[in-house]
Amino acid sequence: MTRPLSVAVAGLGTVGAGLLTLLRDNAEIIAARAGRPIVVTAVSARDRSRDRGVSLDGLRWYEDPVALAADGQADVVVELVGGSDGPARALVEAALAAGKPVVTANKALLALHGAELARAAEATGATLAYEAAVAGGIPAIKALREGLAGNRIRRVTGILNGTCNYILTNMREQKREFADVLAEAQKLGYAEADPSFDIDGVDAAHKLAILAALAFGRPVAFGDVHVEGIRAVSALDIRLADELGYRIKLLGIAQREEGGIATRVHPCMVPASHPIARVDGVFNAVVAEGDFVGRVVLEGRGAGAGPTASAVAADLIDIARNRQTPVWGAAAAALDGEPALPMAQHHGAYYLRLMVLDRPGVIADVTATLRDHGISLESMIQRGRAPGEAVPVVLTTHDCHESAMRAALARIGALEAVLEPPALIRIESL
Amino acid sequence: MTRPLSVAVAGLGTVGAGLLTLLRDNAEIIAARAGRPIVVTAVSARDRSRDRGVSLDGLRWYEDPVALAADGQADVVVELVGGSDGPARALVEAALAAGKPVVTANKALLALHGAELARAAEATGATLAYEAAVAGGIPAIKALREGLAGNRIRRVTGILNGTCNYILTNMREQKREFADVLAEAQKLGYAEADPSFDIDGVDAAHKLAILAALAFGRPVAFGDVHVEGIRAVSALDIRLADELGYRIKLLGIAQREEGGIATRVHPCMVPASHPIARVDGVFNAVVAEGDFVGRVVLEGRGAGAGPTASAVAADLIDIARNRQTPVWGAAAAALDGEPALPMAQHHGAYYLRLMVLDRPGVIADVTATLRDHGISLESMIQRGRAPGEAVPVVLTTHDCHESAMRAALARIGALEAVLEPPALIRIESL
Repeated sequence: MTRPLSVAVAGLGTVGAGLLTLLRDNAEIIAARAGRPIVVTAVSARDRSRDRGVSLDGLRWYEDPVALAADGQADVVVELVGGSDGPARALVEAALAAGKPVVTANKALLALHGAELARAAEATGATLAYEAAVAGGIPAIKALREGLAGNRIRRVTGILNGTCNYILTNMREQKREFADVLAEAQKLGYAEADPSFDIDGVDAAHKLAILAALAFGRPVAFGDVHVEGIRAVSALDIRLADELGYRIKLLGIAQREEGGIATRVHPCMVPASHPIARVDGVFNAVVAEGDFVGRVVLEGRGAGAGPTASAVAADLIDIARNRQTPVWGAAAAALDGEPALPMAQHHGAYYLRLMVLDRPGVIADVTATLRDHGISLESMIQRGRAPGEAVPVVLTTHDCHESAMRAALARIGALEAVLEPPALIRIESL
Repeated sequence: MTRPLSVAVAGLGTVGAGLLTLLRDNAEIIAARAGRPIVVTAVSARDRSRDRGVSLDGLRWYEDPVALAADGQADVVVELVGGSDGPARALVEAALAAGKPVVTANKALLALHGAELARAAEATGATLAYEAAVAGGIPAIKALREGLAGNRIRRVTGILNGTCNYILTNMREQKREFADVLAEAQKLGYAEADPSFDIDGVDAAHKLAILAALAFGRPVAFGDVHVEGIRAVSALDIRLADELGYRIKLLGIAQREEGGIATRVHPCMVPASHPIARVDGVFNAVVAEGDFVGRVVLEGRGAGAGPTASAVAADLIDIARNRQTPVWGAAAAALDGEPALPMAQHHGAYYLRLMVLDRPGVIADVTATLRDHGISLESMIQRGRAPGEAVPVVLTTHDCHESAMRAALARIGALEAVLEPPALIRIESL
């Protein structure tokens, strides 16, 4: 057996402690699969004295995570500090510059600086691995970058944020409103004290940017992702979706279309019969559609110490075995330059819910406006009657352009009889 | 860019032709992902003149597939001949002996001779890759062998035969009997003229033997797999399963238990809410449960030219990139020697359906027999009354031992009032 792979870990939060536990508990099987033992020999964290449930005895301790890159005995650096800049970025850059392989779970870093980091890795031949950055324990990066590499990918769709999926699932199952379920999720530790990163879709968009780069062999481009979160989803819309045969999910969708690649994160109505509609709670899913393989669905836990540590361990085993793959699946020079499509060019079906005064002529005004913008209706439901009061009106459309829909909505929202900003949710046929 | 990877393909049936098409259609993206072009330069098939929809111009042609192993210009051999012995085996052995990497879709070969082939590969350092042998386009081998390699796997469960799943799905959806649906599947090309390999569970057992070896890091052992097919499943049992909240699926299950590893293929009742219960038609699924990652579900097309070619291409790209993994995930010397558990030691719940004469005392005899064998009932349903005639009686049990159940069933089947051999289906809690 070759000498052990010596690992330096920066960041000993939940995931870091989970990784140390995994490498200790499964040391024997990992050595068999990696062809050599994988041993953590150096760590960096904020507080040396904190009890993490795992011994740090005998490990080299660094106050400054960036200093790990210069540790001459470490073969690999694992970055679990987090954040798109600051010490995480400095550490990864320093390690790659020194030709040292890096494993990271940092989606923000990859999404925002992945193109430069790939060039830095290529320059020294160092590996930059990030299975843990997307969909936790699901081997989605490996599936896209290696397992489905023979395919031209048509579309990748994902439930990429467990917090949002947990909230939407509970809103539906318990018929409760967003704010109420969010508060509970925060109490239970499923949502952060400042939840905006999750519920505004930013975290999912980071992950989608990474998946899109891999799926389409193009440089990662977070700025091109259209991002909407789930704050505006109401219990009423979830109930109406059920009646229409849909589920509401926050999806990340990256799709090859005529003229370019569209990437977007927003609440979607998906057919209740589609496998992704039944991925509930904190589970994540990634669906890839390739020209030869057809549809492949991967489902599992998207976060937490165990699943994330499992993904980091897989990257370390690849490094121990010297299995190398370019950061974005192909050398920088071989990446594709297909343009990004703006959201205004999106073409699809829509669900609209209006709260209108129940009085003659309102529906006529609304439907005339849609017609004026070239939008044709698939269905209309007006439930209940309450003359002179507010009632919900639900419209679903045939495929039309986002720009037309936006223009129509602006006019509909300005109608005197329309009492609230219209709710809009895109319907995905998948 | 390095020089192209030169590939020799043995067998130009549906999958072989699909592979040539894939490598031609996606040549550019494959070259980017593989770091060099992947080009088929030699082929072997039975009939040179047959139109396969893909040009063979300029390729070196061999009558004898085994001769491909000695083709000095080929870097890799792809074996798509099939069969556990004969030319397929001879070709793979010859190529590995010559130190030439091999890609195969041949589950029978791997299941029956995988241990020796792994030793042969290890002796010369040649790769033996077989992503296409299990679950078609789903990257299940890669997921188990690399993506989840940090985990101690507790259980792997799979829907591994599309023909069986198609038949069971149609029996349920169309309320038809096995023989009827099988005949239709044969007409449509979803089942072979001689379907026994599929419907008797042998094909699924080959694949399960492979998954079990990878999951538990042990030598492949097809002979240890308990195998039952779906011939005995009736439309009545499928309907009764629905009423009880289950679906009937032919599953392959490999499980780590106290004292060893159990591997079995047989019809199962699974809770309708489990993700695997909803994998219908020709789709396959693999569920892996690991100590850190939790449950991961992979779903996709398990057969057909496109999905199988996709899997073969992934293996070729790994070889082009020089990404190597031992055949069974670890070197032969590092494989585990945990014993196999015989089916008689299985412990679980059971569904029993008896056709009994509707007369006093029959139920008392049946339940007394179960009690005498230490088997406790969870529920009993007797539907309808027809004094003096045959009526179905359905019993579900709490967990008990297979050996006790077998002994009890022999006695119950011998009761004069029990008119047909009892139907037994194991209930899996999953």
